[in-house]
Parts: sequence; C-alpha cells; structure tokens
Amino acid sequence: MPRILRLAAAQMGPNQRAEPRVVTLGRMIALLEAAAARGAQLVVFPELAFTTFFPRWLLSGAELDGYFEASMPNAEVQPLFDRARALGVGFYVGYAERAEDGRRFNSAITVGPDGTILGKYRKVHLPGSVEPREGARFQQLEKRYFEYGDLGFPAFRGATEWHRPVMGMLICNDRRWPEAWRVYGLQDVELMVMGYNSAAYDPNGGVTEDAGLRTFHSTLAAQANAYMNATWAVSVAKAGDEDGSGLIGGSCIIGPDGVVVAQAASLDDEVVVAEADLDACRQGKEKMFHFASHRRPEHYRRITEQVGAQAPA
Amino acid sequence: MPRILRLAAAQMGPNQRAEPRVVTLGRMIALLEAAAARGAQLVVFPELAFTTFFPRWLLSGAELDGYFEASMPNAEVQPLFDRARALGVGFYVGYAERAEDGRRFNSAITVGPDGTILGKYRKVHLPGSVEPREGARFQQLEKRYFEYGDLGFPAFRGATEWHRPVMGMLICNDRRWPEAWRVYGLQDVELMVMGYNSAAYDPNGGVTEDAGLRTFHSTLAAQANAYMNATWAVSVAKAGDEDGSGLIGGSCIIGPDGVVVAQAASLDDEVVVAEADLDACRQGKEKMFHFASHRRPEHYRRITEQVGAQAPA
Repeated sequence: MPRILRLAAAQMGPNQRAEPRVVTLGRMIALLEAAAARGAQLVVFPELAFTTFFPRWLLSGAELDGYFEASMPNAEVQPLFDRARALGVGFYVGYAERAEDGRRFNSAITVGPDGTILGKYRKVHLPGSVEPREGARFQQLEKRYFEYGDLGFPAFRGATEWHRPVMGMLICNDRRWPEAWRVYGLQDVELMVMGYNSAAYDPNGGVTEDAGLRTFHSTLAAQANAYMNATWAVSVAKAGDEDGSGLIGGSCIIGPDGVVVAQAASLDDEVVVAEADLDACRQGKEKMFHFASHRRPEHYRRITEQVGAQAPA
Repeated sequence: MPRILRLAAAQMGPNQRAEPRVVTLGRMIALLEAAAARGAQLVVFPELAFTTFFPRWLLSGAELDGYFEASMPNAEVQPLFDRARALGVGFYVGYAERAEDGRRFNSAITVGPDGTILGKYRKVHLPGSVEPREGARFQQLEKRYFEYGDLGFPAFRGATEWHRPVMGMLICNDRRWPEAWRVYGLQDVELMVMGYNSAAYDPNGGVTEDAGLRTFHSTLAAQANAYMNATWAVSVAKAGDEDGSGLIGGSCIIGPDGVVVAQAASLDDEVVVAEADLDACRQGKEKMFHFASHRRPEHYRRITEQVGAQAPA
C-alpha cells in the first residue's frame, strides 16, 4: 500500500510586536483550516509562531516573560489545538519555552491528529550573541534568551494515519548545519519539518547579501540536505516586514531527490500543499546513500573532536 | 591586497576504452593551453582523467593493470606535467594509483605551477560493489579495484602565486557526502577541487533518474556544501558517451555563497574559467558559519559512532 501523506507549509506573514496574541492565533487557525480544506494531514508553522521574533529586541521583565510559554498547550494557544483536533489535522509549531525548572529554550513540537504531542525539539544551533551589539537598530539575542537545546536530534514516529514516518524537527538556523540533518539521517528519517525567521537583509548595514540571495541559501540548504539524507522536508517561514525588520519567505516542500515540489510566492500568510510518497525515500536510502555500505566514520573524527576551524600551517 | 586566483574547470569528453593514452594526453594538453590562454592559474581535470572509467568493466590481468599508474608523474603523462610547468599553470588530476606496496587507490593530486606535488588524496567514498552484478551490461566495480582511501581529508596550502589558499580535494562520489566537506571546512578550507565520472542514467534500467536530475544533484551537492563551508569549489566531469555508457557533464565553479559562477554547457572537452576572490570566504567563516561560536559537537556523536542508519522503534 502506498504511504502517501499530504503536507502543508503554513507560511505566516509578520507578527507585529504590538499585535495581540488572539489576532495571531486567529490567523494560524485560518491557515490550518485552509490547509485542511486542501486535504493536508500535517501543517507546518514557523519558528516562534505565536509572537514577534523578539530576539531582535533587548528586553527584560514582563514583556520578555510574556513571549514564553510555561506549558504547551496552554489556555492562550488551546484554540489552535482544539481546531486541529476537530479537523483531524496534526501540526508542527515553534514557540519560546519556559521549562518548569525555569530554563528557556527555542522549541518546537509536532502534534498528532488526535492532539497527542508526538515529539519535542529544542533548537541546538542558536545564532546571534549574548551581549547586544552597540548602536545596532536590531539585535539577534538568541544566545541571550535561550539555552542550547539539550535533547539532541531525537527522531520519532509520526501518527498511524500518516503511515508512521520517521520524523525529525529542526528550527531555523539548524537547517544550515549538515550535522543536524545527518544525525536524523542516521535515524532513517523520512520527513523533516522546520520553521524559521530569517533576516532578509542586515538592517544594521554592512552586509552585501540581499533577500534574493538569502532566500536562495534557505532553499539550497534544505534541498541539498534533503537529498543527501533521502528525506522529505517542509521548511516554513515567518515572512515580511516585522517590527520594521525584513524577513525572507520562500517556505517550501522538498522531495527526497532534493527537488522543490511546492513553494510560497508571497511574504504573507500563505498555504502551499503537496502530496508526499514516503516510500520515495527508499531509492536514496538503499542506493546512493546506503550509509552502511558507504560511510567511513574513521575519517570523520574532526566533526566530533573539534569545534572551531583550524587551518593547516 | 586582494587574493585573486583564476580557476579553470577542464571538462573532458569521453575517453573510449580503445583510445590510445597519447590521444587522451593530447586532449588534456590542449585543454590546459586553452585554460592558460584565458589566464587560468589552476586547471581542474576529472577523476580517472587519463583512462576510460574502467570500473564499468569486469577486468583482470594486463588490461586492468594498464589502467593504473605505478608512479606520478611517469613517462606517459610527463608531457602534461612539462607543458603545465612551462605555462606556469598548476592542476588537479585524478588517476588510478598502484602504490609501491601494491595497494590500489582511486587518487588525485594537485600540482603547483612549478611542478611540485602540493597535495595527494585517495578517494574515501567508493561507490559500487566488489562482486559484479549478474546480467548487467555495465558494472560499477570501484569497491573491487580500489581500497578505501587511507589519507583522510588532508587540507594543504596552495602555491604562493595562488595566495596560499587552504585547499582540499575530493573525488566524484565524495562530493555528495557532507562529512567529507565538513572535515575540510574544519581545516578552514577556501578552495575545494574535485573531478567526477557520474552515470547519466542507469544503463541497466530500473532507475527513474534521468541525466537532468543527476546533473542537478551533482551541482546541488557542490553548491550547498560550498555554502555551508564558505569555500570556493571547482567540480569537473568526464562527460558524454563513453564505451556506450552515458556520463553527465555540468562541470562548474562555485563561490563561497553557493552560487554557480561558471558552468560547462556541453558533454565534451570544454574549459570554463572564473576569477575567485579567496577572501570572499571570510564573511561566511566569520558570521553564519563561525564554527567555534555555533557548532555543538556533543550532539553530533552518531556521525562518528554509527555507520548505517538505525530507525527508532
């Protein structure tokens, strides 16, 4: 029996800092309904989907605390969970997590069609800095607000209705790190899901990359890593002009041969849908990328024994 | 002072099994001269450039032995070395190596403009099989004819005239393995050079990939790995109909932002040239891919501790 799963990328336009949570939730529910109406069984939302990308601001106190979720779900986000369960649709969503012990992470969960949390991930590759950059209009303070993810890259099984694919989650910057994908590949992953908030340009100047090049990088990294690990991938943006800072779009669904099968065209709320044949991963996993036949870990030791680059003399 | 190096990809059309070595050498010297006439300082030739891709045949005895080089250079290939030195041009070339102790490798060297061998590499990721596939018109017997490379991924410094870039070599299938690129990335590589012979289709049938998709994969892997390691890359094919079996072309020069700056259009002998600003690697190495700031090797352990894929329960 073919293992077909209908996937949706639910790209979001910007969440402005001043926007009430209930407005954002309403937009997410509308995206969920639009995806379900097109037959989607699994809907992928962006990183930090419920809030603005607050690491661009130097914050403390009540405003900062307000961006974090002390439990998931909670009363504020429950309407999304309820609507998804009523529609029999699962989803991936990114959020700022405050754990019971007070530690804070940039996290994501995948929720099954019955509302069960199937997997949880905490972002490993935090970009940015701990200390604010002086004179900068916008910051990137993820290393200040979050601890490094402590769960590794834990693959898990998707829902029975989805044909129990091996799944893995990443968040934003993680998708540019082949180590992260490979650790999932070594768990035989068939479906990678990830959300992002990626700057369209450097709002503080001094960098020559434009939005086109940055969108190309986002798609390129997901395509090649999907191909090299023979997995489906759904990579989803929060896009557009948020708090005066530009975010790229380019949300996409990619097949295990690295080909983009659907991609968002706007910088706003937009759903794209594609049908994934999960068994299409087998060719890559059994031939070109049959790891047991071809990998030579004795020559990979620098990857785990060394952190930074060390040039030869 | 800007560190500018003029690079050439010297794509080769097929080397037929019956073609005398001297004919192939003549074509390679013509490519070298064409590249030098366009100002190239470093010319990249394909994998197993002096011969047909003989692992497609089940061979033994004198014919098989005749494809291997017992020293490099040797009398047969010396004219290429002599011409390169006279032109003040360096080159990368792939060849079948028979070491003094009798071991055989799929190897490559990089030769400086003064004829010095600057680096040597033995292919780590051998595709194919030890035993021939019964009933197949063409074989892929690299695992039969070669031992796995035993030198790891050793970065080295290019020539003074080239501004001493940190360089790394790969061969064919290696370019699809992010581990190989990352080990060079961890040595601060600025220029990756590699040759390939990649089937344009499965001559034995049964696979749905066509030449277009396979060329896309070849370019995609090189682009993304160049980007994720912030390095220049030159990736060069032996192309066309060789011994009745099709090989893809698509030889290309790629910048450290993953953009293809020059690409061959034919399936024949063809030179493409591009100017590389080696310091263009710095932005990636110092920001997005500043490994010391962002890598988390404690979560990468499967990459070295595990060979094959292991799915969760």
